Amino acid sequence: MNKQSPSQNDIPVKTQSRNVLYAQAGGPTAVLNASAIGVIEMTKRHPEKFDKIYAAINGIKGVLEETLTDVTGLSECIMDCLRDQPGAAFQACRFDLDPVEDNPTQYQRVLDVFVTYDIGYFFYNGGNGSMVTAQKVADYCSERGHPVTCIGIPKTIDNDLAHSHCSPGYGSAVKYLATSLLESTIDLYSMHNTSTKFFALEAMGRNVGWLALAGGLLKLQCPDVPLIVLTAERPFDKAKFLAKVAHFYDTKGYCTCIVSEGLKDADGNYIKIENIEHTHLKDYVQLGGVAHTLSKMVADHFTCKTHSAVPDYMQRAASHLVSETDWQMAYRAGKAAVQAALDGKHGVLPVIEVIAHEPLVWRYKTVDLMEVADLEPTVPDEFITEDGMDVTQAAIDYLLPLIKGEKSIRYVNGLPDIHPLKFELMPKQLTEFIAVK
Amino acid sequence: MNKQSPSQNDIPVKTQSRNVLYAQAGGPTAVLNASAIGVIEMTKRHPEKFDKIYAAINGIKGVLEETLTDVTGLSECIMDCLRDQPGAAFQACRFDLDPVEDNPTQYQRVLDVFVTYDIGYFFYNGGNGSMVTAQKVADYCSERGHPVTCIGIPKTIDNDLAHSHCSPGYGSAVKYLATSLLESTIDLYSMHNTSTKFFALEAMGRNVGWLALAGGLLKLQCPDVPLIVLTAERPFDKAKFLAKVAHFYDTKGYCTCIVSEGLKDADGNYIKIENIEHTHLKDYVQLGGVAHTLSKMVADHFTCKTHSAVPDYMQRAASHLVSETDWQMAYRAGKAAVQAALDGKHGVLPVIEVIAHEPLVWRYKTVDLMEVADLEPTVPDEFITEDGMDVTQAAIDYLLPLIKGEKSIRYVNGLPDIHPLKFELMPKQLTEFIAVK
Repeated sequence: MNKQSPSQNDIPVKTQSRNVLYAQAGGPTAVLNASAIGVIEMTKRHPEKFDKIYAAINGIKGVLEETLTDVTGLSECIMDCLRDQPGAAFQACRFDLDPVEDNPTQYQRVLDVFVTYDIGYFFYNGGNGSMVTAQKVADYCSERGHPVTCIGIPKTIDNDLAHSHCSPGYGSAVKYLATSLLESTIDLYSMHNTSTKFFALEAMGRNVGWLALAGGLLKLQCPDVPLIVLTAERPFDKAKFLAKVAHFYDTKGYCTCIVSEGLKDADGNYIKIENIEHTHLKDYVQLGGVAHTLSKMVADHFTCKTHSAVPDYMQRAASHLVSETDWQMAYRAGKAAVQAALDGKHGVLPVIEVIAHEPLVWRYKTVDLMEVADLEPTVPDEFITEDGMDVTQAAIDYLLPLIKGEKSIRYVNGLPDIHPLKFELMPKQLTEFIAVK
Repeated sequence: MNKQSPSQNDIPVKTQSRNVLYAQAGGPTAVLNASAIGVIEMTKRHPEKFDKIYAAINGIKGVLEETLTDVTGLSECIMDCLRDQPGAAFQACRFDLDPVEDNPTQYQRVLDVFVTYDIGYFFYNGGNGSMVTAQKVADYCSERGHPVTCIGIPKTIDNDLAHSHCSPGYGSAVKYLATSLLESTIDLYSMHNTSTKFFALEAMGRNVGWLALAGGLLKLQCPDVPLIVLTAERPFDKAKFLAKVAHFYDTKGYCTCIVSEGLKDADGNYIKIENIEHTHLKDYVQLGGVAHTLSKMVADHFTCKTHSAVPDYMQRAASHLVSETDWQMAYRAGKAAVQAALDGKHGVLPVIEVIAHEPLVWRYKTVDLMEVADLEPTVPDEFITEDGMDVTQAAIDYLLPLIKGEKSIRYVNGLPDIHPLKFELMPKQLTEFIAVK
């Protein structure tokens, strides 16, 4: 209960109901916009508390630059579009405010915008880091007489969200990766006798192997599938890897593989294609290529044909193949955030709590944003087999409920009925502000 | 009318109806097994002509090795599986017979198998080259007193089938690539303001750019999308490419791209990652990497974040997202092949003839296998814009009907209900034969 009562401040608050600001930040998921729907629907149910609903175009950068759109009266047609829309419908930024002591101008600017639009509630659908920044902004405003409640809304395909059973967005990426590997493996099986014998699929995951676990779901359809799962958590051992491929070649004639993009050797070096680094990146290694590298390694060692795939953004944007369970998790994350505001909470994040397994029963509870800020949960040991190259039944039991259910989408002319959405901006009331660092 | 009457031969033919052999060869498509259904259903409708129906496991290699399965009484359940099954359900080989003068033993072996199983009809669902081999085998058998009718059945995602409006399998790959690029581009759009500004998707196509054309379909949903399409038919010009990216950065802030894996520069060198060649391959260049290369080129030139994806087998195995039109084309290809046999034809291939455009009305006609054998039609000039980096309206008009319609598939536990199918083999009646070259 950090929320401050308006009566403590000297700026008069005109009405009991105040305006809402919703914004998105960081890498999208295939179901991110379901959270926007949850926020919009839930706030509209409580006019006594919430008046207008704005969305910032381009996250906190859009707040600074006053690129806001009014979504209070969004048409049913646009709401329908949001249901199937990949990406961040309101555009997401990879941009965080500086620490307040380094750049107080930024904070004063946000305050100006919040005062101008009478923002009383700020729902930030971003990564942990950006949500903590949002809370600091809200606190800054509150301390200066403009009380703002800040609630985070979780989303990430990476599943590295502490204190939550899983993160909204993860289940759909898992469903997509498992489906893609299953289909490709059946293709591989059908050709292995005289052609390709090894196939590697590269999953996202710089430091954590949650997405690579998806491959383990193949065992539901093919219990004896010759599968290797390489997670970012386990150092890559070339000799053991090649020995396992050899074992599958001997017993099954082929081998399929899923690998975290962030796979490293025992010395901590990424397993990746040489010369692929983008030269301008100084403190950031552009990943992508581990599947190619493994594929070439196997081809050269066994003198056989191999293939590899790198779905990259496809795995987080595949709105044509989302998990209905995951979609509901994202939708209810938005609603849970609004409920937290209704309950008078501030600086919290809804996370998923499991009430019962088989079938999975879950609900949202809230935790302090600060509690999850710097954590990046890795795949637990009990999800990875002792040899470090397969998943356990515990991992499959964990994953299965998250991919359940399909969502039918609209097709027009044979393609999903989606396109970048453009929203009418509010006329600017403040002087221009250019948000560059 | 090359078919020979049984009365011309001295091996007695017991009945009027004779047995059928169906086999698959070469790279699968997402709808290949629909052709198998077409063959099985259509032959069963004509018991006066066709008796037992066998499928070779592993194409012509399976014929040599006598790995045959009886599909005459295939259960409704397995037929249902075939409808959604990616890959080659009966396993496909990349294996062709030697010329008869080099290896007559192989031909004698096929004759032995055909006589043993009284094969009178051979339906070969493969690439042009393998179908011509099949015809030669059939002719060899007929000349030696065992008349065999050979009919090809087309399939390839590459669309390089001469005399046909398109090839079965192409429409589904186009639908998958266009959907994937559309979704990824919306994700890119939503982040471009502060993050990734360029995304490249690598389509299959060693010598032809038919699959890369799929990107052009984005214009149906987003007429002003900043899109670059690079086909294998046009030499890559780095300066012009970077200038077009710069133009889109200036006008739209981002750029999306689809590229043929076989893109070459003006000197005929593949645009690909260095050091990716599989060392054991002597006469064959392992492709894959042009999207990475373009992505790095743009990142280094513009000092910006870029991404790339290589769907590889995913684009030909995605049975969860096939085009209903394409599925029908594959299904009817199987039926048309059987109809050709009923009509007394031999050494022919059904190809798609267009009767009317808008809406597309098509039917199968047959052409001589020899007529299509060595042809590899490239994308016509009128489908590519003058700058060589975009598609024309004519290309979009051509592609659109091929991706129309969706096919619902069965899901179990959140995944498509598919797995490698295993068929019971006929007990071997002949001595062992090992088909190695």
